[in-house]
Amino acid sequence: MNQPQTPKQPWLLTPGPINTSQTVKQAMLQDWGSWDGDFRAMTQSLCEQLVSYVDNSGEFVCVPVQGSGTFTVEATLGTLIPKQGKALVLINGAYGQRMTKILDYMGRDYVVLDKGDYEPPRADEVAAVLEQDAAITHVLLVHCETSSGILNPVEEIANVVEHYGRRLIIDSMSAFGAIDIHSSSVRFDAIISSANKCFEGVPGFGFALIRKDALQQSASNAHSLSLDLYDQWHYLENTGQWRFTPPTHVVSAFIQALKEHEEEGGIAGRFARYSRNQQRLVAGMRKLGFHTLLADEWLSPIIVTFFSPGHENFSFQRFYDLLKAHNYIIYPGKLTTAESFRLGCIGQLYDEQIDGLLEAMVSVLDEMQIPDGNPNS
Amino acid sequence: MNQPQTPKQPWLLTPGPINTSQTVKQAMLQDWGSWDGDFRAMTQSLCEQLVSYVDNSGEFVCVPVQGSGTFTVEATLGTLIPKQGKALVLINGAYGQRMTKILDYMGRDYVVLDKGDYEPPRADEVAAVLEQDAAITHVLLVHCETSSGILNPVEEIANVVEHYGRRLIIDSMSAFGAIDIHSSSVRFDAIISSANKCFEGVPGFGFALIRKDALQQSASNAHSLSLDLYDQWHYLENTGQWRFTPPTHVVSAFIQALKEHEEEGGIAGRFARYSRNQQRLVAGMRKLGFHTLLADEWLSPIIVTFFSPGHENFSFQRFYDLLKAHNYIIYPGKLTTAESFRLGCIGQLYDEQIDGLLEAMVSVLDEMQIPDGNPNS
Repeated sequence: MNQPQTPKQPWLLTPGPINTSQTVKQAMLQDWGSWDGDFRAMTQSLCEQLVSYVDNSGEFVCVPVQGSGTFTVEATLGTLIPKQGKALVLINGAYGQRMTKILDYMGRDYVVLDKGDYEPPRADEVAAVLEQDAAITHVLLVHCETSSGILNPVEEIANVVEHYGRRLIIDSMSAFGAIDIHSSSVRFDAIISSANKCFEGVPGFGFALIRKDALQQSASNAHSLSLDLYDQWHYLENTGQWRFTPPTHVVSAFIQALKEHEEEGGIAGRFARYSRNQQRLVAGMRKLGFHTLLADEWLSPIIVTFFSPGHENFSFQRFYDLLKAHNYIIYPGKLTTAESFRLGCIGQLYDEQIDGLLEAMVSVLDEMQIPDGNPNS
Repeated sequence: MNQPQTPKQPWLLTPGPINTSQTVKQAMLQDWGSWDGDFRAMTQSLCEQLVSYVDNSGEFVCVPVQGSGTFTVEATLGTLIPKQGKALVLINGAYGQRMTKILDYMGRDYVVLDKGDYEPPRADEVAAVLEQDAAITHVLLVHCETSSGILNPVEEIANVVEHYGRRLIIDSMSAFGAIDIHSSSVRFDAIISSANKCFEGVPGFGFALIRKDALQQSASNAHSLSLDLYDQWHYLENTGQWRFTPPTHVVSAFIQALKEHEEEGGIAGRFARYSRNQQRLVAGMRKLGFHTLLADEWLSPIIVTFFSPGHENFSFQRFYDLLKAHNYIIYPGKLTTAESFRLGCIGQLYDEQIDGLLEAMVSVLDEMQIPDGNPNS
């Protein structure tokens, strides 16, 4: 395994931005003219490769979008859901909620199935809503909801959505690239992700992989010029270019990241490493007395939520600062009902970093005078 | 003067992305947690420094936006122009036109003063429109319209807009950082620019410097969650964070770029170098027989439009490819009425690169068998 970081660089146990390899970062040590043929070829290869992960029927296209993942989610919803459409938003955390906020801005009609902080939406619940409401045109699902770390049951939901003849849009921001999803087994109109998650590029753009016939019907849906994927798609088809200045260095890093993703065995290879990270992490943390929010069945290999120690000496900020002094950056919790924190398993993390974090955890609990061995009891 | 590029890297004679220094690119060789205090401090210092260029009265704030410059233009128009507002768009090229397209998407009312391909809008013309139409709330002006390379007369227009009690929004994408503009002498509500122009960072985000009292009145104007600058501003004030994942590496590069901007003498220093580039370039090109579109009075130190040689052997693509073989990437023209091409003066370009381009130009005209000395006659 490569040892990609210099020792001073902190290890990011977060859902992204994540640690990238030095070679990915070094791919940014050049400038490109975005209008030039060399860069157009880079964009084309990037798009073709991303499509190849979800489809080999020729029915999907890739549309890249500058900005964060949320920009791509908003662009996809704005482009694909017609002004007279209606969405069913499946919510079990912040990213489902954010989709309703986006729809509010755009003035699109929607209903929600809100399962609270971490319960998964199930097929029968989705069926019941669709059965009752024929006006619903689109169902919006978050693949891995990083608020809790849950991996939502995409396949069973996709089957129900298909059965009722509605269209599925999947926000797979934090999962795509490590969790397999393919149009031959799961029916969806669009899947959304970004450069700086499981593909291990640096942040700066996202992309939507969209069923061509859905996109073809989407002219003049969009509420925003910058976020109009129909317009961007046409421009790309005609000129090979992004409509507006792309983050050229970030794109170059992503192309290197795709190469390294391939070398690691593609989606299966990355799934294997992240799963190993997660299992090693969860086992170690449980040994220290921490409890996971979710049962094993729902844990993702992306990020895991742990309950904070109930001990009176615990303060998240102190815990964070002490772990950072050991060179590990963790992530705050997002539960409304209980104090928690999160540990990510993605990015350039290997056994060495997981074990290092667990060792740091022991020291930090000691420094905080929280009895090692059973902090949650 | 530093020699920032390896020889193989092409020189970009474009309006951006531009050539950046190696040290700016090397600032991307680290990963940051966007939630972490270190990165929050980077964002804060970046915002404070940008504000200091236009204002020292405490009346302005900086709001950064992921994506290309157009994303920031759209975000600023969407946030500052109320749904019942009306804009006067001053047009003399593609970027003025793009603002009308943005307003169309958002359903905002507007009128235009369209001067065609390259004539500047003048104070008396703007006054005449404002005099006649009391409903106009905002005037939108492009500072340097890179379609032709013209530097529009900001001060005279700002004075008229102020006189009529309307609000001015300046798209200074390609000029800010090299052309001085300060709230003490020019009245405006917002000025917009991006990382990869005269500050010589890499592309990936833009920013708007906005009069605080204008922003305070802008709650719930925005048509888009991702592009809501009011929401982003509040979040930044409360948390020190970008609302959605920032392009951390691009931000780091920009902070290094700001440092190098200071070292070069700030806006005045950069203006001096770009002006020198432009004068050397125009003098050399004229010696070879090329004609500029604009009279000297309107030439910017940002980018210059030249008429293409009228000679039957000329084809832009061949010209482009041959110059690229010499390691120089030029930019196509954007005039509707005449064949032209553009040469940028911004980025890490010094005498050596300008002279190198002029030498390459001689070879290329020779290779194309276009008589050196008078290609435009």
